[in-house]
Amino acid sequence: MSVSPSEIEALLFDVFGTLTDWRRSVAGELAAFFTPHGLLSDWNEVAGAWRALYQPALEEVRAGRRPFVRLDVLHAENLARVLERYGLDGVLEEDALQELNRAWHRLAPWPDVTDGLARLKRRFILAPCSNGDVAMMVRLARHSGLPWDTVLGSEMAQAYKPAPSVYRRSAELLDLPPGRCLFVAAHHDDLAAARREGMATAFIPRPHEHEVPGDASRSGDDWDVVATDVADLADRLGC
Amino acid sequence: MSVSPSEIEALLFDVFGTLTDWRRSVAGELAAFFTPHGLLSDWNEVAGAWRALYQPALEEVRAGRRPFVRLDVLHAENLARVLERYGLDGVLEEDALQELNRAWHRLAPWPDVTDGLARLKRRFILAPCSNGDVAMMVRLARHSGLPWDTVLGSEMAQAYKPAPSVYRRSAELLDLPPGRCLFVAAHHDDLAAARREGMATAFIPRPHEHEVPGDASRSGDDWDVVATDVADLADRLGC
Repeated sequence: MSVSPSEIEALLFDVFGTLTDWRRSVAGELAAFFTPHGLLSDWNEVAGAWRALYQPALEEVRAGRRPFVRLDVLHAENLARVLERYGLDGVLEEDALQELNRAWHRLAPWPDVTDGLARLKRRFILAPCSNGDVAMMVRLARHSGLPWDTVLGSEMAQAYKPAPSVYRRSAELLDLPPGRCLFVAAHHDDLAAARREGMATAFIPRPHEHEVPGDASRSGDDWDVVATDVADLADRLGC
Repeated sequence: MSVSPSEIEALLFDVFGTLTDWRRSVAGELAAFFTPHGLLSDWNEVAGAWRALYQPALEEVRAGRRPFVRLDVLHAENLARVLERYGLDGVLEEDALQELNRAWHRLAPWPDVTDGLARLKRRFILAPCSNGDVAMMVRLARHSGLPWDTVLGSEMAQAYKPAPSVYRRSAELLDLPPGRCLFVAAHHDDLAAARREGMATAFIPRPHEHEVPGDASRSGDDWDVVATDVADLADRLGC
């Protein structure tokens, strides 16, 4: 471990994938919404297809082709496209569609997360630094027991990770130099961007985020801390 | 009570005075910093004098004569002025001055607050909507056990209450119409501004905020809810 816990005052977390099992949660909600209509599909695949439209949608904002709009709105646009592709459009009423879109407000945490964060909170300021918007992060935290001190991330900077301003603005709102923040993620590109802004970095592999493991299969040796899960991170930081 | 709890999803709180006893907390810190130097003063009066510079400093920003700057910075400027006025300047080192300025991060809650908020949190989203900045609100919450879901308020809008944008932006960040937010304060002007933006309002008198009771002696009958304290507010909202 190449960082001393005493130098760190705040832990900033990626949320989708790193703390929550979005794929199984969203697949479960898709099944719950469509099976009463007698519709069957590979809901894991549909969830993955919905998520696959996420980065391209963010890229429109990152590239400046579109003004910043909160993730909830992008999710709704992407949901309409993915339902059309799978022949599931025209089935749900508008209210039900909106409720399904809020599946991202109800993601299940990985089993180690709730207890691990509670231990870390005794010593460190905890905040999400996610591409999710404030309203989404607040409702997700209440649903899943994520004990944030406040919500930081994309909406604070009106930009999407890995834009440097998201990390910088998050540290600035805590009145901390980036070096006193430890950024925690399961994704190497996110960690690399946080490090470029001067943050310390912690990698937690999440091999089950995708059906085919991606980042999780790469070595985490580049980062200041490598932990098997949030409980192990708490151990390593002496909590 | 002219509002139904079922219409409300979030409670937004004023913090100084409404939830915390700033006067006695700050007076206690002043005493702790200066008495080891053999200096004596009426620390309640010095705390009041420090606070009396608060509204004029905010007014510089509200009137557009100065760009938005976080409250922590205004507090430090005001502290320098008040120490000079009482002949207490030149006593503390820079580090100690900064630590004393953070007295506002360590305010004691009124006795009803911690338990009352914990009860309210089971049912409602809770957030401060204060003129305090995010870094200050986060540290104060950790110090005093205020279980916020996220920090909203002045820094989100880069403006100071009662500027309309502070209330509007806070509701917007929760993706709620203002009418689904209940604004809670001990100050009539704050409540009036929240109401003008469409929020429901709850008045809690705090007769001991100032040495000479001000707003607290006025009737609270104008507001949607009048509660004797946060525990009573929880009772009235069915928590």
